[in-house]
Amino acid sequence: MQIVGELINASRKKIRNEIKEKNYDEIARVAKEQAANGADFIDVNAGIFVGGEADYVKWLIKTVQENVEIPCCIDTPDPEVLEEAVKVHKGMPMLNSISLEKDRWEKMLPMLEGTDMKVIALCMSDEGMPYTKDDRMKIAGKLINGLTQKGIALDNIYVDPLVQPIGTGDKFGIEFLNTIEALNEEFKGVHTICGLSNVSYGIPKRKLANQTFMTMAITKGLDSAIMNPMDKKMMANIIATETLLGRDPFCEKYMNAYREGLFEY
Amino acid sequence: MQIVGELINASRKKIRNEIKEKNYDEIARVAKEQAANGADFIDVNAGIFVGGEADYVKWLIKTVQENVEIPCCIDTPDPEVLEEAVKVHKGMPMLNSISLEKDRWEKMLPMLEGTDMKVIALCMSDEGMPYTKDDRMKIAGKLINGLTQKGIALDNIYVDPLVQPIGTGDKFGIEFLNTIEALNEEFKGVHTICGLSNVSYGIPKRKLANQTFMTMAITKGLDSAIMNPMDKKMMANIIATETLLGRDPFCEKYMNAYREGLFEY
Repeated sequence: MQIVGELINASRKKIRNEIKEKNYDEIARVAKEQAANGADFIDVNAGIFVGGEADYVKWLIKTVQENVEIPCCIDTPDPEVLEEAVKVHKGMPMLNSISLEKDRWEKMLPMLEGTDMKVIALCMSDEGMPYTKDDRMKIAGKLINGLTQKGIALDNIYVDPLVQPIGTGDKFGIEFLNTIEALNEEFKGVHTICGLSNVSYGIPKRKLANQTFMTMAITKGLDSAIMNPMDKKMMANIIATETLLGRDPFCEKYMNAYREGLFEY
Repeated sequence: MQIVGELINASRKKIRNEIKEKNYDEIARVAKEQAANGADFIDVNAGIFVGGEADYVKWLIKTVQENVEIPCCIDTPDPEVLEEAVKVHKGMPMLNSISLEKDRWEKMLPMLEGTDMKVIALCMSDEGMPYTKDDRMKIAGKLINGLTQKGIALDNIYVDPLVQPIGTGDKFGIEFLNTIEALNEEFKGVHTICGLSNVSYGIPKRKLANQTFMTMAITKGLDSAIMNPMDKKMMANIIATETLLGRDPFCEKYMNAYREGLFEY
């Protein structure tokens, strides 16, 4: 699993003010903690600061990169912000995100062309959010084909089928899972990613539902997630799932996680 | 999910003496508790009482059936014990189990022929236990074809691919899961069953591994399990998994389990 640490996001109440006040030590701490706990990318989002977004994102990238070795996931729908952000990022960032929405597609695509950036591709179009596997696959097909035609490698594309709450549609879980499976079958080599906590929106015992859904999604082929790497239960869950899927020679990761106390929650 | 309650088994230390002393109240209590907590069958096993097995099994069946409405799963490899046991069982029991081992196969098969009994078919032959999906599927194919040729309905066959500990082979989990998937593809309508706790034998945090593996197996198509229905965490896990798979209209089972405190562990 590749993990995008989601904590440095200004839409989260806990960190909004630290970003606003450019609290270097606190941002450095949250970046380091996420990296130490298994993050492969650090998401940086300052989307709520209208007019000041680019400035904040650049500061976040610099702060993060001064403190951890892993790249940032630049989280903005604004191509102008992205353009400025990429300039200050050392090495190749991930972009969160492109979609099939015309405006976003047309402005983001030229920025990706000819680069080795990784990109999250949301299964979303101007017709709105898809609900079935088939509708998602139509959008995903256009996204993947459009990106690869511009020379972007499958290995740099992370398709996010968009999780919807099962409380609002009891087939939303399985339609998502079937999409993950179909993407792995039809586009071998492409990555799949999601922020899955939305699945439990509106129902009780959200953590149980989220952990269970993570295990199910990995079993169907999900290989990346936007999540909180400080969530020990979820991380333990992911390690156990991967071990049981035969991806952990001699159960070494599982045993190390046990010895390091990751399962003691 | 169909659940075979596993607690009334003389190989379990806790209940051995209650069976030996024919403690009616205790066996009744354990049967009722399992039924009240979601069991669809009550496994009865007195295999350790050499010479007295048939007598004990008959007493267990009578005791269970005087206290719960659900059928027994008669757990014996001995066709003579089975023959006597079936006579005292009201309605159709499940048999645990037949296998491709010549002696067992030849003696058990005639007892099943012409009946509507349900039967657990172990993926085991005289050549021993299979380790890969392909080896399991060869045995499963012979078992299923042999049983259906004798008129036994697919819906009465519960194939157990036999879980092996990932601590002794790191691909044992995925080979099992792939077998479940292949059985559902190749023999549509057959049931799959297992007692899965063996997967975590020899590694720490067995409950975490078992719960995770249950979710994975159900996601791959497992529809029955031999387990302890009093294990609240495991039952909560199963309910969450089935809800997320779209088998719980309006999340009603999930909400009921929540209201009944099943998730409070």
